Amino acid sequence: MNEPVSTASRAVVLVSGGLDSATVLAMAVASGIEAYALSFDYGQRHRAELAAATTLARCLGAKEHRTMGIDFAGIGGSALTDVSIDIPEQASSGIPVTYVPARNTVFLSLALGWAEVLDAEAIYIGVNAVDYSGYPDCRPEYIEAFQNMAALATKAGVEGQAVRIETPLINMSKAEIIRSGVELGVDFSLTVSCYQADDTGRACGRCDSCRLRRAGFETAQIPDPTLYQSG
Amino acid sequence: MNEPVSTASRAVVLVSGGLDSATVLAMAVASGIEAYALSFDYGQRHRAELAAATTLARCLGAKEHRTMGIDFAGIGGSALTDVSIDIPEQASSGIPVTYVPARNTVFLSLALGWAEVLDAEAIYIGVNAVDYSGYPDCRPEYIEAFQNMAALATKAGVEGQAVRIETPLINMSKAEIIRSGVELGVDFSLTVSCYQADDTGRACGRCDSCRLRRAGFETAQIPDPTLYQSG
Repeated sequence: MNEPVSTASRAVVLVSGGLDSATVLAMAVASGIEAYALSFDYGQRHRAELAAATTLARCLGAKEHRTMGIDFAGIGGSALTDVSIDIPEQASSGIPVTYVPARNTVFLSLALGWAEVLDAEAIYIGVNAVDYSGYPDCRPEYIEAFQNMAALATKAGVEGQAVRIETPLINMSKAEIIRSGVELGVDFSLTVSCYQADDTGRACGRCDSCRLRRAGFETAQIPDPTLYQSG
Repeated sequence: MNEPVSTASRAVVLVSGGLDSATVLAMAVASGIEAYALSFDYGQRHRAELAAATTLARCLGAKEHRTMGIDFAGIGGSALTDVSIDIPEQASSGIPVTYVPARNTVFLSLALGWAEVLDAEAIYIGVNAVDYSGYPDCRPEYIEAFQNMAALATKAGVEGQAVRIETPLINMSKAEIIRSGVELGVDFSLTVSCYQADDTGRACGRCDSCRLRRAGFETAQIPDPTLYQSG
């Protein structure tokens, strides 16, 4: 942190197509990082999210964008991939049914694989411990444990070049994230946060994710550019 | 460890179709565990391995067997040439066709997801620190770090029911693994270790994996039941 980095360093940036990861990608690019955007197709209902990720990677200056497929082989367990579980429209206590099993662990592990191939120094992920909705794998202690594991997992790590897990949003409120993104030129109308967006990416305005997002724009006193399905 | 478990406990067992993981599955089943066998289709050349995994899961008494697909989106060996502007040409020559970046981390993470859905107590993996000491993700310190991370990653972990990562082979020689498997009734002629097995699973007899396996049978003084392509 004391010396400016003279050569571009590489990082894998997890980009879901949502508001948070778009901001993370903008932050990484603004810091001079050569950003390799990575998205996952794990059978999520909201397919528009993946299209948004592709657009955002291009517009925000990622060096490259890949979408990896994960076939969970029907193990289920989440409303996001299991159509037999309803998407909740009320905030619930505890861990929500929209939880994807071991989600961030799976995503970070695949990112670690790409980081290893690229000889990348870091993986950026838009986890957030403030508005984190009860997900255990969004907490700082989890991220630290993943980084410790990663340092022992790969050849680079063993040779002292362990990958860093960068979580620039971890202590920011949704309103702060929105303000940062706007300052960095992120067009949030391109992002899709809704758990049940339609094919064109328009949001339902009712699910947990929509409510959290809308409240963020209100608190930030920034006009909400989200395209809603009605109203 | 002090009280006998009265009800069958569940575990996810990683089964590749090879000799080591077949032995691990037999060990898990013999200990009274309800075993959920998990294999991965990540585009490996030796497809016979996956067919062997299916057969072994059935013959060795797994409760269920799933094969999860992982589409690495071309980040493997070929990606080294795709994004090769800053990567030296000779770097790709040393990457074997079987190379999977961050392999055990990716496999264990997906197993963690299924373990969470199943409410399983453990994940069994046939890593070995004796005959494969060159791989960083086969060492006990790596496994311990993964387990520490997993305890923070999931709902069960947060609630005090963290999954255990079981590595019964970690300190065994290949010959000891073979002897244990034979004692447990594993038919090693069903297993495929060869990196370039033919479609029916017959081994080349020449690759590293074949040589290690053959030497194991010799040391164990057990007739090698492997089906070879010739001789």
